[in-house]
Amino acid sequence: MNRCLIKKEEVLGFIEKCMTTVGTKPLHARSLAEVLVEGDHRGHYSHGLNRMDMYVKDIQSGICAKDGEPMVKKESAATALVDGKNLLGPVVGNFCMNLAIKKAKEVGIGWVVAYGSNHFGIAGYYAMQALKENMIGMSFTNTSPLVVPTRGTECSLGTNPISVAAPANNGDSFVLDMATSAVALGKVELYDRRKDPIPEGWGCDATGKLSTDPKKVLNGGGLVPIGGSEETGGYKGYGLGMMVEVFCGILAGAKYSKNVRTWKVTDSVADLGQCFVAINPANFAPGFTDRMSDLMSIQRRMKPADPDAPVLVAGDPERTAMEKCDVAGGIPYHINVVNYMNECAKRIGVSELLPNDNLISD
Amino acid sequence: MNRCLIKKEEVLGFIEKCMTTVGTKPLHARSLAEVLVEGDHRGHYSHGLNRMDMYVKDIQSGICAKDGEPMVKKESAATALVDGKNLLGPVVGNFCMNLAIKKAKEVGIGWVVAYGSNHFGIAGYYAMQALKENMIGMSFTNTSPLVVPTRGTECSLGTNPISVAAPANNGDSFVLDMATSAVALGKVELYDRRKDPIPEGWGCDATGKLSTDPKKVLNGGGLVPIGGSEETGGYKGYGLGMMVEVFCGILAGAKYSKNVRTWKVTDSVADLGQCFVAINPANFAPGFTDRMSDLMSIQRRMKPADPDAPVLVAGDPERTAMEKCDVAGGIPYHINVVNYMNECAKRIGVSELLPNDNLISD
Repeated sequence: MNRCLIKKEEVLGFIEKCMTTVGTKPLHARSLAEVLVEGDHRGHYSHGLNRMDMYVKDIQSGICAKDGEPMVKKESAATALVDGKNLLGPVVGNFCMNLAIKKAKEVGIGWVVAYGSNHFGIAGYYAMQALKENMIGMSFTNTSPLVVPTRGTECSLGTNPISVAAPANNGDSFVLDMATSAVALGKVELYDRRKDPIPEGWGCDATGKLSTDPKKVLNGGGLVPIGGSEETGGYKGYGLGMMVEVFCGILAGAKYSKNVRTWKVTDSVADLGQCFVAINPANFAPGFTDRMSDLMSIQRRMKPADPDAPVLVAGDPERTAMEKCDVAGGIPYHINVVNYMNECAKRIGVSELLPNDNLISD
Repeated sequence: MNRCLIKKEEVLGFIEKCMTTVGTKPLHARSLAEVLVEGDHRGHYSHGLNRMDMYVKDIQSGICAKDGEPMVKKESAATALVDGKNLLGPVVGNFCMNLAIKKAKEVGIGWVVAYGSNHFGIAGYYAMQALKENMIGMSFTNTSPLVVPTRGTECSLGTNPISVAAPANNGDSFVLDMATSAVALGKVELYDRRKDPIPEGWGCDATGKLSTDPKKVLNGGGLVPIGGSEETGGYKGYGLGMMVEVFCGILAGAKYSKNVRTWKVTDSVADLGQCFVAINPANFAPGFTDRMSDLMSIQRRMKPADPDAPVLVAGDPERTAMEKCDVAGGIPYHINVVNYMNECAKRIGVSELLPNDNLISD
């Protein structure tokens, strides 16, 4: 009984209120609230309400801009370079993704890159905007250095996520949303708090050696790219992390690699680089969504190795999480997170708090 | 002393001669020869001369077209759908990549997708064409089903490679060219021949369980996606393999997933789907190659975990392989491969054979 159920609309309103109270433009506050609540709804609590205090602090301290709009600096029929004007990540992300979709309607593809951006929540949120237009969507962002390259000893890449969403029939879709590190930092922190060893292939110590001790990974070590050791293909994950950096920091002329500010240290503007793509299947072979549905069926209907663990397609675990929320009539939050955010709200003078009385059993 | 050195030009001429002898159009034979020799030159012998007999057989049997040209079926300023007309993969690949580059010169990006294609050699060959124009290049292809999805028991995806090339200063470049499986099938076959166990995380048995027995992987089992088990992030590699299939078979309307013909069985046309992309950095922030060079220096200059194994960037191992060839004045081939291909040449009536007398020490 350490979780409570809160209606989506209540969380949205709460985040909006906290953000506008510290001076965020209402539409911007709404954009942020929607991305964070979507993260929680999809079961990615690490990128939801849980991070609201970080965004509040960024606006309060002035390290992130509370007003203004992103601006197109260079443009062709199919591409754009956008100055994010140091606005909240979701404001930049929505602006760029809408622009990419508009271009894809006209010439089949839109490839939009932004500098001067900030953390934008789950990457999948932007890729999924394309689904509404029956298009393929992609989004990428660089992030603070947390990943040690294969053979290396220093964090020189972020967890640099890749998201790709593609529509199938009847509202079904493929939604890949993955960090290019083996796991997220939060997962290692969780094992550390539980005093459990982490599986081999998640992180390394300060000398670059793979380690199962979460303390070593968190103190001087780092996450490792997908694939783990060099022998099991870690250099591929490292290459994918570099690819994301090329699309983001390098193409956009934003901060990149070690120059991105340290995680959780907000002494300078983030100047993140991000990349948003929309591709219109109508410009290619007819019958795209039929083939997508068939491809996903081939996987989902396959005999699983374990009869209790069916073969899934990217996006299925999130679909299950969303269905659970919808049946229950709200999003289940850990009571500690709710109380922590309510304290945060009180400190900035917000009196409409999150209800923490609808407790549910785990 | 089981390797011999052969000049690049001699291998090119030999492959060209073998292909034209069975009826391939000379320009098409030349295209294939160039891709295969480039594979060997870069050290990827699994995708070079070693496969010539497969291409000869495909033309001889008529399962692959010996004449004709690819055709644009649908086009916008930034996109194209191409019918590969069942021509050799490199013919389709060069046609599409040139088209993508042309579009990227005009509108900043070209995204070209082909159906009716065949094996095209190393994916990196096409991505790297963009480097000559100071552009980012990408290429993807689906392939015969060899990979078992996470939690699954059947091969329902190919090794579906991703290649991304990006130019830096002074001819330097980032060249990622990777299968989305943990390793290539050839690597498992090699361990099998040596009777060595394979590392955990390369493949699974017929029940979908990870196995270190190469025999089980090769007989009824399959390769697994990068990341290995579900715990170490194998579902991410699976998602990337699906992404490649979306860009290739699904977007192009070609064969896809289990429907692609079985590896090494050529009883029907391949109808592979492939995707070629060029992105012009000139459409984004100035100084792209400077930032690329700096990003690569950050990695290469990092203190390595093992002083004898420096931190590399994607493309560096291939650069070393090419330098070795250039210093030696030729490509080192295993004598068995040379003799095997000479036998193949004799059978089709080619008398100009590869020289196998320039033996070198290993």
